Amino acid sequence: MDFSPSPRVEELRERIAAFLDEHVYPVELEALHALDTEVGPGKPYPDILVAIRERAKAEGLWNLFLPDEEHGTGLTNWEYGMLCEAMGRSLVAPMAFNCSAPDTGNIEILVDHGTSEQKDTWLRPLLEGDIRSCFSMTEPETSGSDPTGLRGTAVLDGDEWVIDAHKWFTSGAVGADVAIAMVVTDPDAAPHRRASMILVPTDAEGFNLIRPVSVMGHSGGPGHCEIRYEGCRVPKENLLGERGAGFKIAQDRLGPGRIHHCMRAIGAAERGIELMCKRANTRISFGGPLADKQFIQDFVAKSRIETDGARLMVLNAAWQMDEYGKREARQAISMTKVVAANVVMDVLDRAIQVHGALGVSDDTPLAVMWRSLRMLRLADGPDEVHKMVIAMRELNRWKSEAGAEPAQKPAAVAAGAS
Amino acid sequence: MDFSPSPRVEELRERIAAFLDEHVYPVELEALHALDTEVGPGKPYPDILVAIRERAKAEGLWNLFLPDEEHGTGLTNWEYGMLCEAMGRSLVAPMAFNCSAPDTGNIEILVDHGTSEQKDTWLRPLLEGDIRSCFSMTEPETSGSDPTGLRGTAVLDGDEWVIDAHKWFTSGAVGADVAIAMVVTDPDAAPHRRASMILVPTDAEGFNLIRPVSVMGHSGGPGHCEIRYEGCRVPKENLLGERGAGFKIAQDRLGPGRIHHCMRAIGAAERGIELMCKRANTRISFGGPLADKQFIQDFVAKSRIETDGARLMVLNAAWQMDEYGKREARQAISMTKVVAANVVMDVLDRAIQVHGALGVSDDTPLAVMWRSLRMLRLADGPDEVHKMVIAMRELNRWKSEAGAEPAQKPAAVAAGAS
Amino acid sequence: MDFSPSPRVEELRERIAAFLDEHVYPVELEALHALDTEVGPGKPYPDILVAIRERAKAEGLWNLFLPDEEHGTGLTNWEYGMLCEAMGRSLVAPMAFNCSAPDTGNIEILVDHGTSEQKDTWLRPLLEGDIRSCFSMTEPETSGSDPTGLRGTAVLDGDEWVIDAHKWFTSGAVGADVAIAMVVTDPDAAPHRRASMILVPTDAEGFNLIRPVSVMGHSGGPGHCEIRYEGCRVPKENLLGERGAGFKIAQDRLGPGRIHHCMRAIGAAERGIELMCKRANTRISFGGPLADKQFIQDFVAKSRIETDGARLMVLNAAWQMDEYGKREARQAISMTKVVAANVVMDVLDRAIQVHGALGVSDDTPLAVMWRSLRMLRLADGPDEVHKMVIAMRELNRWKSEAGAEPAQKPAAVAAGAS
Amino acid sequence: MDFSPSPRVEELRERIAAFLDEHVYPVELEALHALDTEVGPGKPYPDILVAIRERAKAEGLWNLFLPDEEHGTGLTNWEYGMLCEAMGRSLVAPMAFNCSAPDTGNIEILVDHGTSEQKDTWLRPLLEGDIRSCFSMTEPETSGSDPTGLRGTAVLDGDEWVIDAHKWFTSGAVGADVAIAMVVTDPDAAPHRRASMILVPTDAEGFNLIRPVSVMGHSGGPGHCEIRYEGCRVPKENLLGERGAGFKIAQDRLGPGRIHHCMRAIGAAERGIELMCKRANTRISFGGPLADKQFIQDFVAKSRIETDGARLMVLNAAWQMDEYGKREARQAISMTKVVAANVVMDVLDRAIQVHGALGVSDDTPLAVMWRSLRMLRLADGPDEVHKMVIAMRELNRWKSEAGAEPAQKPAAVAAGAS
Repeated sequence: MDFSPSPRVEELRERIAAFLDEHVYPVELEALHALDTEVGPGKPYPDILVAIRERAKAEGLWNLFLPDEEHGTGLTNWEYGMLCEAMGRSLVAPMAFNCSAPDTGNIEILVDHGTSEQKDTWLRPLLEGDIRSCFSMTEPETSGSDPTGLRGTAVLDGDEWVIDAHKWFTSGAVGADVAIAMVVTDPDAAPHRRASMILVPTDAEGFNLIRPVSVMGHSGGPGHCEIRYEGCRVPKENLLGERGAGFKIAQDRLGPGRIHHCMRAIGAAERGIELMCKRANTRISFGGPLADKQFIQDFVAKSRIETDGARLMVLNAAWQMDEYGKREARQAISMTKVVAANVVMDVLDRAIQVHGALGVSDDTPLAVMWRSLRMLRLADGPDEVHKMVIAMRELNRWKSEAGAEPAQKPAAVAAGAS
Repeated sequence: MDFSPSPRVEELRERIAAFLDEHVYPVELEALHALDTEVGPGKPYPDILVAIRERAKAEGLWNLFLPDEEHGTGLTNWEYGMLCEAMGRSLVAPMAFNCSAPDTGNIEILVDHGTSEQKDTWLRPLLEGDIRSCFSMTEPETSGSDPTGLRGTAVLDGDEWVIDAHKWFTSGAVGADVAIAMVVTDPDAAPHRRASMILVPTDAEGFNLIRPVSVMGHSGGPGHCEIRYEGCRVPKENLLGERGAGFKIAQDRLGPGRIHHCMRAIGAAERGIELMCKRANTRISFGGPLADKQFIQDFVAKSRIETDGARLMVLNAAWQMDEYGKREARQAISMTKVVAANVVMDVLDRAIQVHGALGVSDDTPLAVMWRSLRMLRLADGPDEVHKMVIAMRELNRWKSEAGAEPAQKPAAVAAGAS
Repeated sequence: MDFSPSPRVEELRERIAAFLDEHVYPVELEALHALDTEVGPGKPYPDILVAIRERAKAEGLWNLFLPDEEHGTGLTNWEYGMLCEAMGRSLVAPMAFNCSAPDTGNIEILVDHGTSEQKDTWLRPLLEGDIRSCFSMTEPETSGSDPTGLRGTAVLDGDEWVIDAHKWFTSGAVGADVAIAMVVTDPDAAPHRRASMILVPTDAEGFNLIRPVSVMGHSGGPGHCEIRYEGCRVPKENLLGERGAGFKIAQDRLGPGRIHHCMRAIGAAERGIELMCKRANTRISFGGPLADKQFIQDFVAKSRIETDGARLMVLNAAWQMDEYGKREARQAISMTKVVAANVVMDVLDRAIQVHGALGVSDDTPLAVMWRSLRMLRLADGPDEVHKMVIAMRELNRWKSEAGAEPAQKPAAVAAGAS
Repeated sequence: MDFSPSPRVEELRERIAAFLDEHVYPVELEALHALDTEVGPGKPYPDILVAIRERAKAEGLWNLFLPDEEHGTGLTNWEYGMLCEAMGRSLVAPMAFNCSAPDTGNIEILVDHGTSEQKDTWLRPLLEGDIRSCFSMTEPETSGSDPTGLRGTAVLDGDEWVIDAHKWFTSGAVGADVAIAMVVTDPDAAPHRRASMILVPTDAEGFNLIRPVSVMGHSGGPGHCEIRYEGCRVPKENLLGERGAGFKIAQDRLGPGRIHHCMRAIGAAERGIELMCKRANTRISFGGPLADKQFIQDFVAKSRIETDGARLMVLNAAWQMDEYGKREARQAISMTKVVAANVVMDVLDRAIQVHGALGVSDDTPLAVMWRSLRMLRLADGPDEVHKMVIAMRELNRWKSEAGAEPAQKPAAVAAGAS
């Protein structure tokens, strides 16, 4: 048992922290504003971010998420998890290092499943940071938790897929060059073999970006877009991975993706604690600093405890993915997802409360983090679906007496993990 | 003991509900948008709201909040509380009936403390709904929970007050005709006798509206404004109430104001329950409606229980104000404030969760209610200050043995209330 | 709307409080001990309690629970609710006033359904306080939440019922003269018409008291007993109420019973607050009384808020029973049950925490109240079943648009109550 | 980063689990009963436990807690932590392996601070398991959280210490041969140099065992005893460690002791999950097993998540103690203490709830674990004191900008830990 980071990740983490201090925090709110107003077709990033990204790329703080050693850094999941936390401290930081969703997940599946032509066309410029991409799965009419209900379709017509689908929460579509659409290609196959993934250039005819859905009052920037694919035609070579493998690829994509989201949430919680404490140390009320009031101490202590607990759970899940594979780590990943998404909301809520009126204003990054991260309790599976799945796995362990003493490997720290 | 509404309030409530169904809900999101974009100097309300307001006024659903029988309806606090709940179901509803903060509070203090000239100039057009007003108390540099720290000043120079103050969260300043500024006029008086209230026309020189502070991503409409009073001069007749009575008037204003906020919060929670249930009844997932899942049932049951409990507490506090006066009802009001501000957030959070991605979008009124109402846990005293005060009153009851059996009046239902 | 107690109940409440101060609290722990050790066949109450009971009876503080004016006081449910709260402040108090479960419920159904012979034999001595009774419904093998699963049977053999059943949690069986057993008499009838109630003298052959089940470490006194009815014969005249009406009678019994339990829980919570505050006011730690620490203030404030909220909900449910009947008040009763059973545990837990090591000891009444009252979250329906039922009623309100504006009577304060 | 147990600890854990399955669980309730009734002066353990202990000793499952390689097994804190968890699954298990408090802590300080004569007299028979010991620190009149308030004294009179002190919660005094008393020996020294530890044979004159304090209804067995040291004389050689070093030794004793308590709590929570799940899988209600109800799934999922999170926090704290020392690990230990003590209560509460009436009975080990473990939120520092300390350390990190990037070692997983 060893809780130390490797020297390599320790060094990277320090460099990221220093980069954030120097180049990101000072322009954080400005960059968020630029992102909202400057992004559009042909312009994936606002100028202020382009400059920051060039610097990060030059310093080698780039594409750190890729476990693949050819294209990426070859960090393990737990190693990258630690870096991800650092990047989660600011909503603009992931973009600074070309490590932002949904590009990260899209890049991963292009690395794993893309043809060499697909790699040339989309993977390379994504890795270079020249373009952005989006991921088109969620549909307004069907429950995302139950993917067998998917309705959007693609039909092979000669050499082309003809796509008809109504999607929303296609995040990042504004300013993206390409979408990966998940649609039913084989309606008569077994439920989990019905869908495929298809690459769709955003300038394809029939790719109609209806609107960036206003989410928590915000519709600027890359957006969470509503898209109508209406007789949208793309070459049959745009199929990504095997036909019918859509669910499997989506599932593979989700494992590390959930961990990334969770680690960023831990980082956001850490930022919340930092701001909460700095405010408490300096704000005077009723004759002394807020830091002297036990109500505030209670906030700080709970936030520290919950954040440290959540971090350990996420790192453990990442380590399980590294050691035993994504499938074996499912229980840990689900638990992590529930915990991190809730902890970050509670910590940010307390940080807001400690800031008083300033906390609900947008003069600090707290309010925007709070309302943006609310989505995490729904994205990639709502809390309730994860809890149902966690419970059923646990309950099944105890169905036979044999289950009473599980022989699994990571038993020490994850008695409930398989 | 009797929990029935009076026939009069029952009838008003039904009329308000019908009015909302017919005239408000159908255009609710549109009206919110118009409010954000059309309001400005000389234009207190957008056209869509002007039309709705005219209709409400014509139907006599107007100024219901005023306990004063000359200018208002003469409803008791608990009676108006019930109507306030109904109006809280939509963020635009209070404006429809000329019952929105901060006008309500400003009108009350003008009725109680205004000179007849002040009444002619400001009270009458406010009651008619021709103008809006704002209230300028909170300062960025000082803690609102501890009003003795107030820094803004007004100095009498001949026949004029010269005001210098830095205020923010002056809600509704955009499009308002007049502000009531709370400033220190007597710096050497006892701590609670230092401040006064002064009426300041928003077109007075030196009344500088710096910006509507962006709050939870929102800076449109009437706004929560940052104001700099810089050598701002108004006639000495603009003093509202007695010199040095600022705190007392503010305190009087807060009692009913808190109850109104809380009752509206109950209404917002009821709206959340309605939308949560309707969604649960119709959304299919995993082979059946969400309503059949116990996770959702747990949300519904907790929401119903907490909302009904909070309503009873608010009505009881209102009734105590009616029966025993604002001062005697303080404990009940403080408790009410903590409960209602928290319950509404929890209920809306669950309603969002049940709606999935739709819940965080602005295609329903849930997300905007959730992020707007977050402020209620801070406004009019943060939870923690109220809890401190509640606890100290309770602890003091038990300091002498005499306290063990309090002889107070409303003992039946509020053993801890004095 | 009126939250005042009636003068009559106000006067009774004061007399009960004075009685407790003078005669109960001073011997509370002693009386609990005597109850544990002296009770047995032919000895329903220990001497110390007999003396207290005589005094209470002489003062007319006796059988206050009975709404029936012939045998009881004719108080309404909400009136008695207030008295019940006062009695809930001590675990021995209800016995002092001949108002303890399960006698109260048994007396009520004897009044409503007993033949005149049954009344002579059992009702009269119960009202006089000469005997105790018990209620035999719960079975170890079947779920109490789902009463249609009941297994115990009674078969009419000539002029006698022959009862075979395995019951437990037959509370108060040690020292009781009579049990009311709920058993299946009509196995082929519709599910809710299968059971009946039968009066069984505890000295009947075949009434085998196996053991007082140790509950939370406690098996003394009247006990929560395991009973085996083995070919137990009683005259057919011992049928209580109509044949097949068992469920209906049990349901009727539960309504007021739940309210009584809940009001006593409120009283226990009030006792917890009193002891918590007195301790906090006097215990010195880190240089001052605990009352000065905000951690403790947070405990006190939350306890006061939750207890006052719960009280209002219980009184409202009682008032609804009085005004609209038990059936109409079901939703309010279910909500009340969940709230009160949880609030009292939280408040007592905080009171224990404030007392430190003393709190977990039995040198105060807190620890015994805490572990005894844990059962309330299970008895008369576990929280989860009540929440399920509450949710389904609420969800059904919104199934048709008509439901959106309920026309029910007590709408003001119980929008969700029907 | 590595979450695997070492092969050695993995093997020991499996042997302990097998031992519990075979020898402990089948007689668990019986052994608890024997412990309550058979223990007394000269009889440290009941026969049934003596037999189990002999077997465990023969198998080498003995004194596993001792980091000292001469007397113990030389396991690290995190390694023993894992074993401790296994033992926490049953209240009698720690005794089976001679690993129960307070003997473990007493043995540790005898190893570290005992003279060779003290070791011969007390350490050896404790290690052999021939005697038991107790620890006499807590006083009814002073706050245990604030040890500088200690009142009990020892005065050197010639060759003897004369002890006068009033202690309680001297756990295990019934049947113990020796007590370690913490008393003020140097009243004029600096606050943390005033107290010393003294070994007191329980048959010394003036060692008056007043009573085993009834705790949560339980006063049997080794007890949590009230002791009056009244002119109690022991040889001056009975001073344990240096004079005035009492606080330091107590503090050293607490570090691992807290971890042990917490790991046992994790084990108790795991037992709760096991019983909860087995019950849910087999109990039928409303037409299916409880396991199919989402209310129960919610219990299971939350319990699994919280327990796994707590385990990781405790193991991390243990590992920090191993790597950086007790002092550096303080923050982690405090956090661990709060989390584990609360999680186990919540999990056991849910397990009780799933068992219905059976859950509050003593027919399962749940109810006794629940009421016994309540003390853990108070023992070794109440939650509130730990939270205050955690918060102040965290707040201090942010007082200077330097604090913003802590240079500490275990930064990866415990950003807030120093």
